[in-house]
Amino acid sequence: MPDSLRKAMSVPSSDHRAPDFAELMARILKDAKKVFKTETGQVVTIPATGTGGWEASITNTLSPGDKVLAARLGLFSQRWIDLCGRHNLDVEVIECECGEGAPAERFHERLSADSDHAIKAVLVTHNETATGVRSDVAAVRRAMDEADHPAMLYVDCVSSLGSMDFRMDEWGVDLAVTGSQKGFMLATGMAIIGVSPKAFVASETATCPRCYFDFRDMAGANKKGGYPYTPPIQLMHGLGESLKMLLDEGLENVYARHHRMAEGVREAVRAWGLELCAKGPELYSDTVSTIYVPKGFDSDTLTHHAFDAYRVSFGIGLGELAGKAFRIGHLGSLTDAMALSGIAIMEMAMKDLGYPIELGAGVAAAQEHYRKTLDTAIEAAA
Amino acid sequence: MPDSLRKAMSVPSSDHRAPDFAELMARILKDAKKVFKTETGQVVTIPATGTGGWEASITNTLSPGDKVLAARLGLFSQRWIDLCGRHNLDVEVIECECGEGAPAERFHERLSADSDHAIKAVLVTHNETATGVRSDVAAVRRAMDEADHPAMLYVDCVSSLGSMDFRMDEWGVDLAVTGSQKGFMLATGMAIIGVSPKAFVASETATCPRCYFDFRDMAGANKKGGYPYTPPIQLMHGLGESLKMLLDEGLENVYARHHRMAEGVREAVRAWGLELCAKGPELYSDTVSTIYVPKGFDSDTLTHHAFDAYRVSFGIGLGELAGKAFRIGHLGSLTDAMALSGIAIMEMAMKDLGYPIELGAGVAAAQEHYRKTLDTAIEAAA
Amino acid sequence: MPDSLRKAMSVPSSDHRAPDFAELMARILKDAKKVFKTETGQVVTIPATGTGGWEASITNTLSPGDKVLAARLGLFSQRWIDLCGRHNLDVEVIECECGEGAPAERFHERLSADSDHAIKAVLVTHNETATGVRSDVAAVRRAMDEADHPAMLYVDCVSSLGSMDFRMDEWGVDLAVTGSQKGFMLATGMAIIGVSPKAFVASETATCPRCYFDFRDMAGANKKGGYPYTPPIQLMHGLGESLKMLLDEGLENVYARHHRMAEGVREAVRAWGLELCAKGPELYSDTVSTIYVPKGFDSDTLTHHAFDAYRVSFGIGLGELAGKAFRIGHLGSLTDAMALSGIAIMEMAMKDLGYPIELGAGVAAAQEHYRKTLDTAIEAAA
Amino acid sequence: MPDSLRKAMSVPSSDHRAPDFAELMARILKDAKKVFKTETGQVVTIPATGTGGWEASITNTLSPGDKVLAARLGLFSQRWIDLCGRHNLDVEVIECECGEGAPAERFHERLSADSDHAIKAVLVTHNETATGVRSDVAAVRRAMDEADHPAMLYVDCVSSLGSMDFRMDEWGVDLAVTGSQKGFMLATGMAIIGVSPKAFVASETATCPRCYFDFRDMAGANKKGGYPYTPPIQLMHGLGESLKMLLDEGLENVYARHHRMAEGVREAVRAWGLELCAKGPELYSDTVSTIYVPKGFDSDTLTHHAFDAYRVSFGIGLGELAGKAFRIGHLGSLTDAMALSGIAIMEMAMKDLGYPIELGAGVAAAQEHYRKTLDTAIEAAA
Repeated sequence: MPDSLRKAMSVPSSDHRAPDFAELMARILKDAKKVFKTETGQVVTIPATGTGGWEASITNTLSPGDKVLAARLGLFSQRWIDLCGRHNLDVEVIECECGEGAPAERFHERLSADSDHAIKAVLVTHNETATGVRSDVAAVRRAMDEADHPAMLYVDCVSSLGSMDFRMDEWGVDLAVTGSQKGFMLATGMAIIGVSPKAFVASETATCPRCYFDFRDMAGANKKGGYPYTPPIQLMHGLGESLKMLLDEGLENVYARHHRMAEGVREAVRAWGLELCAKGPELYSDTVSTIYVPKGFDSDTLTHHAFDAYRVSFGIGLGELAGKAFRIGHLGSLTDAMALSGIAIMEMAMKDLGYPIELGAGVAAAQEHYRKTLDTAIEAAA
Repeated sequence: MPDSLRKAMSVPSSDHRAPDFAELMARILKDAKKVFKTETGQVVTIPATGTGGWEASITNTLSPGDKVLAARLGLFSQRWIDLCGRHNLDVEVIECECGEGAPAERFHERLSADSDHAIKAVLVTHNETATGVRSDVAAVRRAMDEADHPAMLYVDCVSSLGSMDFRMDEWGVDLAVTGSQKGFMLATGMAIIGVSPKAFVASETATCPRCYFDFRDMAGANKKGGYPYTPPIQLMHGLGESLKMLLDEGLENVYARHHRMAEGVREAVRAWGLELCAKGPELYSDTVSTIYVPKGFDSDTLTHHAFDAYRVSFGIGLGELAGKAFRIGHLGSLTDAMALSGIAIMEMAMKDLGYPIELGAGVAAAQEHYRKTLDTAIEAAA
Repeated sequence: MPDSLRKAMSVPSSDHRAPDFAELMARILKDAKKVFKTETGQVVTIPATGTGGWEASITNTLSPGDKVLAARLGLFSQRWIDLCGRHNLDVEVIECECGEGAPAERFHERLSADSDHAIKAVLVTHNETATGVRSDVAAVRRAMDEADHPAMLYVDCVSSLGSMDFRMDEWGVDLAVTGSQKGFMLATGMAIIGVSPKAFVASETATCPRCYFDFRDMAGANKKGGYPYTPPIQLMHGLGESLKMLLDEGLENVYARHHRMAEGVREAVRAWGLELCAKGPELYSDTVSTIYVPKGFDSDTLTHHAFDAYRVSFGIGLGELAGKAFRIGHLGSLTDAMALSGIAIMEMAMKDLGYPIELGAGVAAAQEHYRKTLDTAIEAAA
Repeated sequence: MPDSLRKAMSVPSSDHRAPDFAELMARILKDAKKVFKTETGQVVTIPATGTGGWEASITNTLSPGDKVLAARLGLFSQRWIDLCGRHNLDVEVIECECGEGAPAERFHERLSADSDHAIKAVLVTHNETATGVRSDVAAVRRAMDEADHPAMLYVDCVSSLGSMDFRMDEWGVDLAVTGSQKGFMLATGMAIIGVSPKAFVASETATCPRCYFDFRDMAGANKKGGYPYTPPIQLMHGLGESLKMLLDEGLENVYARHHRMAEGVREAVRAWGLELCAKGPELYSDTVSTIYVPKGFDSDTLTHHAFDAYRVSFGIGLGELAGKAFRIGHLGSLTDAMALSGIAIMEMAMKDLGYPIELGAGVAAAQEHYRKTLDTAIEAAA
């Protein structure tokens, strides 16, 4: 967590009925719209994790028995699918291979066939944290439009918003769900949801039971400068500062910075002779890379060794990738020095375990990339 | 927030899969049971406010259409009743006068008449923050037992647990709901719920839809040292320290300290010639006092003036008490000096607005009380 | 310490050769001049306490054997006198009664008699912390001018600068010494010294040995944006923010705020029937009040009891006032509520020990004063 | 600064006359002796930087005109020599080549010739921060003993104490000077001085003027649990925690950790084909490496580029090394990952400027070293 955010969050639990809270709330809701790139939609915040944000998006806009179309891309899309089932939705799952993105063509096919518009919602994970895959949300929107289908588009952007390009209005996203702890670089505990006008209208008639997560209560209270229950005042202040940081830097610069950082990591992976889980460059995530270990090696042994020996945490393989892949996160206020140190440590851990790699090789590849792209980085920061 | 808690919460968002998280989690769940005074039950934490805790207690253990018996004591019990309705429960409300506690006799009457045991749950607000009234939960339990009724007992102890005597096992409480920001003195954002074995069994068959709030997922993950989704790591560390502080001081000492503090405030109220909302001494809350303003005065004007002129926040009258009463909170790590300063400022604000009170009168009464009870306080601290 | 200062000081020990340090340094030296109210002088900071600041002012501008004229007003002026002696200066002391300010007339008399100008320096403690006495520095300057004496004027403004009116240029002060922990509300550890052009010239020929405290090294390094040794980077950042706070509020408003706060405390003292050490209203300090206990009582017993019983620290009687007087500090970002709580606790402590006072009496007198002067305070803050 | 120290320092400026301050003070003085490895000596703390510590050691124990023997090893020993001159000592300087340590033989020669014992003090810089050279203090002591010379031994251990082996009693050091910001990992602002019984006796008769830095005042006040002036309470709390950290880890482990870290950096230097300033392995500092740039390159250009392009601060060449060498610090709670990131960034900066090095080469050499020595590190931490 950047120091400026830590400082911003260090506020007393003062009365949230004081006038300055209303101002903070209003500024947050206005600035957050810019990060979602929506002018027509509105933003709702709920004291919960991203999972709570999924639940809020679903229960506010759908009714038990509603049909939902989703693609299973990895552990996180799987969990969202599971959540829908537990709220009595009828989830139709399109199975994808590990490392694929959201299958716009198969969505198109399925939606075209749904002539009576039984499908109410299409669920897409913009950035699947398990596989390190970025889906093409715009392509999904085109598929829906070409099928002339009125379903709403729900996007999990927990690990992409504020780090990778996201365009709520342009892509016709109806519900966009993120959390405080990724692109916003804060503590975990706040779900932040972009809601389109269409989604808000849907909330008037949707019958999934909800109360804590109810958009109408929240938006109504927010409009009056309040909150329907005790607000998480520290996180609100942190969010206010985080939005300021992102907008001051400029979103395009933030995206470029993440892309540059991620490319360096990917150059290291190439130098190691390893393979990314993501099946092609257009699918590469700029916030996390999922990397297969060579056959005969166990990725859990690797990540545990890196932690035990060097006190550096790498992400484990999740879901079906357990034991087969590890993950390097490259999200937030990362510097070249921090990225290089992660690469260097991973190299040592692999060497320790007999991986066929050369010490310094991945580092050198990343160094070369960071040097080459330095001017752009400096220009963007200026 | 005490400094030691602020320090404890200042941790990096480190990997919650690291071994020390499992240890922290286990210690929290064990120590929290002591604060709830339960040996047979277990504790569940959810990243949400107390309102989320209510929702969790209801949706995990009841099914749509289930009959619930509740007493309307003030704004917070009213909100809980509303929440039940929105989850399709059939709520039967016993109306109470403002300033009354939970009506054990009327509960007994109603439960005795419910011979086919249609009522599945009895809801009690242990400490109604709107009215400053403490209900006699033990008496409600006796009423249920005397009616030989198998309904479960749900208690909102958001503003009492960790400050006022609470005995989950002895009182036969099945679900006890609190939050991080009151007796635990932390930031808002964590619901903490005591769950009896009977309630846990009920969660196996209850059909209210839930996922984010699901006890089984949470308890299952906790048992393995994990969390079903990203845990609010800062609040977990804070809770670990807060539990340590409460248990180190000793719960009985904590209660005595709150009682002493509250009595001083009540002595000031008497000296001012004002009346508490709570209808009798056995109902006085030790965490918040709700005080009627004299006829002809508006309590909102008073609280606004105190804030505008002296930058001190007093609680406004809530619900039907809007304009009629103000509230003085006396919860957490309050000192004599802090309580006296609040009393002094309120006196000035009242005098400014022409209230028939004498400057220094309330302060002197509270001073006298704090001096008289000093030895006990010092002994307890030793 | 205000939260904003605590936050400002929370910086990494980054390289002080980085360009932003030079900017910070330059801004501090420029803004600090405004607080000293000097345009012709310059400001020097040294990592030391106020005592180190005295030493720096003396050793940089005087030579062994130089005659120095000083008034003994209390413990702090006594310590400064002692320090001069240990640096081999020839100190002539004018003894004052406890509670008096700097004796301008006696200074005039002595300086007039010093026809060969043997006296090189006149030492005045602007605000004597031991007695709670503010001296009239302007009167001392007039005395010097009327005697047509070229001695330099040294003023200890440790406990007045940034809280009470101070005018370096107008009063012809040559060396003005303060520290970080009083009016600047920071941690202890930085001496801040205003140096007149005349004093700077004197530093070229003065022969008291010094190195760590040498103005020339410091001013020379500062000019280039550096420091002659490792700078206390956290305190520098804190000082930058503190200066911003003082100048944003406006110095005259800061003084008025301190005066209002002090007057309330003095009203309480009157209501208690006690006497201030300061011999007249024109001598009252706005940052600390020294209060005699009645005959037959011991002030150390009182301050110890207040701390033991109520955990509130009051200043003890210092030097010859040990056992005879206690002190109430009213400096920094104090609110009405904080001042009233101190008064209330002192009342209780006195009552506990049998002092002939009435509970609430002092509080009521202070409340009355704070109420009456509220409009001014609000206007000033606006 | 480690987080635990930042937390420890976050204390209110509470009354230093409260009983807990005396306890803290006593514990600090006792534990600090262990870090100096002295049983017979005592420790004095003064709110000042290390330079203030030098001044204190000199002015407390010597008299104007006293002869002092010192070796000029680099900028920091030069500054100490300069300081002695400004306090009117008669400094005899032994010139050393850049990269040499304290010349025990030449000291022996000079001291043997001083048959009337005119030399009162021998000054040694244990770790010269400018050149990255560790001197053999034990050898200097032997030289003094063999010459049967009674001069006192003064050691600057600012950048070694708490990081590299130091043995005050065994080496017969009379005055050992350090500061809070190096091995103790705190903010700058506290000089910490080990004083032998002999040095303390000398302070009774030494006539260099001093007051702020007077050992007798400080030791006297400390003995009563106090301070002769306002203590830097935040730094005292930080020092208490820092001592605890060092002693909990074990000093030998701390030294081994620094040595391992330093060796990795030196392996990188070898792989780059560059030369260390220190003339031989027995002189290598474990807290800082000073590295010559190849002929034709300017080290200032290099360090500036590293900062501008990659925001990483490397030490510049100091004194006669300006433009010729840069420095890598490896002191405090450094991890393998942090050391490797510094090496990687320096490699990039050199490559950017056309240095004849290969990307990744230095990193690989350091990685190899850290891997090889991992077991020892893990054992030590256990």
